[in-house]
Amino acid sequence: MNAPLPILVVGSVAFDDIETPHGRRESCLGGSATYFSASASLFAPVRVVAVVGEDFPQAHLDALSARGVDLDGVDRVPGRTFRWSGRYSDEVADAETLDTQLNVLQHFDPRIPAHYRDSPMVFLGNIHPALQLQVLDQIERPQLIAADTMNFWITGERAALEKVLARLDMLVINETEARLLAQTSNVFVAADRILEMGPRILVVKRGAYGALLFHPDGTFFVPAVPLREVVDPTGAGDTFAAGLMGHLARVATFDFPTLRRAVLSGTVMASFACQGFSLDRVLDVEHTDVEARMRELLTLIHPGD
Amino acid sequence: MNAPLPILVVGSVAFDDIETPHGRRESCLGGSATYFSASASLFAPVRVVAVVGEDFPQAHLDALSARGVDLDGVDRVPGRTFRWSGRYSDEVADAETLDTQLNVLQHFDPRIPAHYRDSPMVFLGNIHPALQLQVLDQIERPQLIAADTMNFWITGERAALEKVLARLDMLVINETEARLLAQTSNVFVAADRILEMGPRILVVKRGAYGALLFHPDGTFFVPAVPLREVVDPTGAGDTFAAGLMGHLARVATFDFPTLRRAVLSGTVMASFACQGFSLDRVLDVEHTDVEARMRELLTLIHPGD
Repeated sequence: MNAPLPILVVGSVAFDDIETPHGRRESCLGGSATYFSASASLFAPVRVVAVVGEDFPQAHLDALSARGVDLDGVDRVPGRTFRWSGRYSDEVADAETLDTQLNVLQHFDPRIPAHYRDSPMVFLGNIHPALQLQVLDQIERPQLIAADTMNFWITGERAALEKVLARLDMLVINETEARLLAQTSNVFVAADRILEMGPRILVVKRGAYGALLFHPDGTFFVPAVPLREVVDPTGAGDTFAAGLMGHLARVATFDFPTLRRAVLSGTVMASFACQGFSLDRVLDVEHTDVEARMRELLTLIHPGD
Repeated sequence: MNAPLPILVVGSVAFDDIETPHGRRESCLGGSATYFSASASLFAPVRVVAVVGEDFPQAHLDALSARGVDLDGVDRVPGRTFRWSGRYSDEVADAETLDTQLNVLQHFDPRIPAHYRDSPMVFLGNIHPALQLQVLDQIERPQLIAADTMNFWITGERAALEKVLARLDMLVINETEARLLAQTSNVFVAADRILEMGPRILVVKRGAYGALLFHPDGTFFVPAVPLREVVDPTGAGDTFAAGLMGHLARVATFDFPTLRRAVLSGTVMASFACQGFSLDRVLDVEHTDVEARMRELLTLIHPGD
């Protein structure tokens, strides 16, 4: 087996204030780049492009460095770190955003370190599509470009987002956002339309209901790993993307059989994210945990011979 | 292969007024017993216990008879047939009930014909739990008793419903109703609790998200068949139950491998129900259609080797 491909990720690093039926946590470590890099580093070298404020503790960065995450692309600038406050009313509800303070993210000007520029895989986390484009403009053409986005950019920054979509190999997006993007309530019609916007691979995240993979060679549907306690679903989507990209980085091919396994890998990783606040559980995950849960998932979806 | 086991079904026969994004249909054939018997008759002999009013057209009954459905247990009584009016705001929304007229269902007094009494399989469709019990009291102990129910009985007729649950082998229920019954938002915790109420097998229907099977020997999750057009989801749950029970009737065992296949069979049948108003598509389905769609579903869930 060859060495895994390095993955460049750009996204947010945040302080989160979170309330779920299982408790409340203030100023905990969050953000798409954080969840992604903590999870993907289990599979492959990860290079982060992000911004933090003066208030961001070095210890948080050290926790990621300890996992081999390359933080040379993390800028520390004057001001306060991005902050998000959200509440989940029950285990199946979507987050209700209580407050968003962009802070240093408002003037984020992503600069790609020279040694990041030939990264073979890129994940554009959920940030302003203009920033996603700015990253793409600074790098050589990678083997695989994937991105996430959200309702806010779909409705408010459609033109920039369409430019991003045109340059993607793969979009990894929530079901409600896929419907919004394609302006249809039918997720399969939405998939058809999104695949005409640029990406040749689409992964639709359905939260507790699993995920759908649309690839030129076929489609694949997987349920979520059953959890009897969802402590905090924050970051599960980025952790999913990390498990997915991480598996692809390890295998270094992007064909349909590999993508199916990658979606299973994402599904497994997302389940860990839900089992603790912030990165509590994700930072504890070991390969044996991943393998055990993968076996469990494969059993759950096995129709018989 | 032995002859399939006969299935006794008790449930409603109805006139439905339905509005979906794909159109509007008035006074079309509906009801749990109707959808169930039309679908299950593709797999096994079906015996119906139900009530209709003087206004019910003989042609509707003839369509079921033509499929070999035994209608000796269908009572025609003075008054009007049960009527339900519902609206679906988009393809993923639950039905909004606009009107319910119980009519002859209000005084339904199910009488089981003598030749139904040794039915080896019984499906108690979604009617008042007291009526479900009345049916069980008139028959010999079948090999498998399954039932469906709804929020209305869970909240309003809890005591009677608990008596039904205690006598079931299998409950087939919607996810929202499973949560309501078990008083938890976590469907897996709900499953644990429901299995303590009586049934040893639980099937949770998740609509467009598929179904979950909980059996003493394991669990199995299946996604729904992808549909690019959901014309009318009315009756999909009963059609699912029919495909499930029908497969079990054909194989005549209720072990975990058979149940997994049965859930796939239910999933396939439910997809046909969604493709037309009323029973339009269901009454057209042939074995080759079922087999083709089963192959499609198995491909969609195949993780690779």
